[in-house]
Amino acid sequence: MVSSESSTTPVTLIPKRFELLTLGDELLLGLTANGHLTFIGAELGRRGVQLARNVTITDEAEAIARQIRESLAQADVIITTGGLGPTCDDRTREVIAEVLGQKLVFDPSIEAAIVERFNHFGRVMTPNNLKQAYRFEDGEVLPNANGTAPGLWFEYEGKVLCMLPGPPNELQPMFIGQVIPRLAERGLLLMREAYVQIRSSGIGESALETKLQPIFDRHGAALSVAFCAHQGQVDCRLSSPGGQLNPGQIDAIAEECAQLLGEDFMCYGDDSMAKVCADLLRADEKTLAVAEAGTGGQLSSAFTDICGKNKFFNGGVICSSNEAKMTLLDCPECMIAQHGAVSPECAVALATGVAETLSADYAIAITGFAGPCAGTKENPIGAIYVALYAPHGVWSKKLSYPGPRKTVKTRAVNFALDWLRRELVRAQAGRVLPARRLTAMQ
Amino acid sequence: MVSSESSTTPVTLIPKRFELLTLGDELLLGLTANGHLTFIGAELGRRGVQLARNVTITDEAEAIARQIRESLAQADVIITTGGLGPTCDDRTREVIAEVLGQKLVFDPSIEAAIVERFNHFGRVMTPNNLKQAYRFEDGEVLPNANGTAPGLWFEYEGKVLCMLPGPPNELQPMFIGQVIPRLAERGLLLMREAYVQIRSSGIGESALETKLQPIFDRHGAALSVAFCAHQGQVDCRLSSPGGQLNPGQIDAIAEECAQLLGEDFMCYGDDSMAKVCADLLRADEKTLAVAEAGTGGQLSSAFTDICGKNKFFNGGVICSSNEAKMTLLDCPECMIAQHGAVSPECAVALATGVAETLSADYAIAITGFAGPCAGTKENPIGAIYVALYAPHGVWSKKLSYPGPRKTVKTRAVNFALDWLRRELVRAQAGRVLPARRLTAMQ
Repeated sequence: MVSSESSTTPVTLIPKRFELLTLGDELLLGLTANGHLTFIGAELGRRGVQLARNVTITDEAEAIARQIRESLAQADVIITTGGLGPTCDDRTREVIAEVLGQKLVFDPSIEAAIVERFNHFGRVMTPNNLKQAYRFEDGEVLPNANGTAPGLWFEYEGKVLCMLPGPPNELQPMFIGQVIPRLAERGLLLMREAYVQIRSSGIGESALETKLQPIFDRHGAALSVAFCAHQGQVDCRLSSPGGQLNPGQIDAIAEECAQLLGEDFMCYGDDSMAKVCADLLRADEKTLAVAEAGTGGQLSSAFTDICGKNKFFNGGVICSSNEAKMTLLDCPECMIAQHGAVSPECAVALATGVAETLSADYAIAITGFAGPCAGTKENPIGAIYVALYAPHGVWSKKLSYPGPRKTVKTRAVNFALDWLRRELVRAQAGRVLPARRLTAMQ
Repeated sequence: MVSSESSTTPVTLIPKRFELLTLGDELLLGLTANGHLTFIGAELGRRGVQLARNVTITDEAEAIARQIRESLAQADVIITTGGLGPTCDDRTREVIAEVLGQKLVFDPSIEAAIVERFNHFGRVMTPNNLKQAYRFEDGEVLPNANGTAPGLWFEYEGKVLCMLPGPPNELQPMFIGQVIPRLAERGLLLMREAYVQIRSSGIGESALETKLQPIFDRHGAALSVAFCAHQGQVDCRLSSPGGQLNPGQIDAIAEECAQLLGEDFMCYGDDSMAKVCADLLRADEKTLAVAEAGTGGQLSSAFTDICGKNKFFNGGVICSSNEAKMTLLDCPECMIAQHGAVSPECAVALATGVAETLSADYAIAITGFAGPCAGTKENPIGAIYVALYAPHGVWSKKLSYPGPRKTVKTRAVNFALDWLRRELVRAQAGRVLPARRLTAMQ
């Protein structure tokens, strides 16, 4: 199986301790979500490394120094984010240099890049920007194509210290393009996906495990299995940390699981439900329209984020008001008056209306009380009707989800998407499932 | 000013070190965002406390024990999240008890609550659930109204250790209803907002500071000012940590700032832009409709999340396809053919079309190439046209934002909302700005 590996990377990894230090008061004050943890954690995880710890601290010199000392004592690889910029509260570079007894040296090539960037945007460079032109005397520079502050790379006593700028649009390409390859060269992560992920939908975690267990049992300890449940979906990750199974074998096992799961199998990898539906629609050259009263645009939004949406998405109508239901989708006033806007009859009328108005092959309509207000005695908050219009008929289902509005909306949207997905899979029954290979990654 | 304080809480706080320990592999693998940090960090911040550190670690006993020891050595208040549930990988309770040498005692009242919950949902309680019925011998129980695992509260040597369950819908009400009051009783946080927040829109951070500096200067060191820039908005927080200024005085300063900012003043506190627009529309009994081609439902979604939307939001149309533009909004085919779907003419036609179709007083239309694909030579990706329809006219503006699709969409939506907000403010010129008081909080 070595042939299937990149020559610079090992078959398996020597376990090393990775720590991520995220700096910034805005994180500790809950003003911004810690997107660096989500991004770096996921990118490392895909390559067979799990972060041992993420520590978020303030920008103060004392706090940074204390944390760096503590982390250096434990970790093999330390990645820091933030605090490399030009302002006075950017202290990461200086504090860490002091803790490590490293000299900071002025690097004209960094200065040139900063000046070049300011010229490019026709702006004048203020002197404080030159603070960013210093690197560790024995360290490397990670050029920043999207900002002024370069990243810094420093190794000593077998440890790696990697300092990255805070803005995501600067950090993310730098991490993928420069940090990942450096870590791989040192055998600290895999340059291929560490696992195959099977994404299932509409089946619980324990039911999924029970269903697949017979397949897993055949491979014993050679196969490592991990589950992760999201809202409405459960991911199952197959890997062989010891390297006893090669990528081809893991692929074969994954395919066997997918076949066994049948309609509960959603996709390999981490495509969204909307993306999966979109691919199925495009494969059959079918189109979709949606009407939303209660989820107010969330369903449409899921589809319009997909590239090439105009090929399959004919449009959507947000019709919380009855007037919108009547004017835009020909929903009969008397029907709303008789059955109410939150009813199976109305859901079916909306799905049919939007499908016909936008001449779509499939349509989804959602109507209900997602809360926090409204709701009736017979249809309390959380009562949602979903209707699905397909070439061979139109049906509605009632859901009742407790919980806050955001959760109710997301669950209703996920339910509707899964219903559509199953209809499309049935319509294309017999189609071979797309195979997912453990491809090499940049 | 003491009169305006809750009797149990101090005017100012004795600085204490707060640490938040968030447990869970799913956080370190980037599968879930660390929402506990965002929530707890913000709730503490509002009450005058900034987290000193957030540490995310795995569920392993060794990792938990090591981290608890380390944090106990530094922090005065430690809040943990997760690992209190019934399964074998829920170890927080047991590990921390061992580290502290605390005995875990079975609490029949917890058992009763768990049994009651299972009965309520007509489910059978599996024995492993009783694991959750143990509390620290010298500790308190924080009842869980939304789940089986109660929170645990333990104090020793002047330190507070608070263990909370992982699910947000269980943790959040427990934190607000039980943890916050306990911390306040001990003088560890304020039971009133620690600052007044002025939210501005359409003005940069440095420009905002320059504009307000004269007001700040008059109060010198007594007034503490902090800025935080979001996308399209800058928040300015006024407080008096030393207590030299009382809440009334800080309110007066905030009001003076608001008046000086004029239209750039968005609101006090942290209302969303859509909420501010909604309040302005309702105050004038005006209605709104939106047409989205390019932002695909994000604008509608912002309004439909607001309680009482049916009072002001007549509906929205997601019209990425030309057919939807023509069928639903009477956008003339010849006009699209001549000027293109991404043009000022089309934006104006869409705004007018949706306003008339849904008989709304105001309408916003967004059409453009948000990416990642499509785009033309003259209108590359990031080129967006926004049109605003108002009782006294209809206009369009061109934006061109670089960056990933998500950013482009959000910026376009924020721009459109701010434009509408300014129109509504002008239409209601002379209205007294709502005053915000430093009210006591639950």
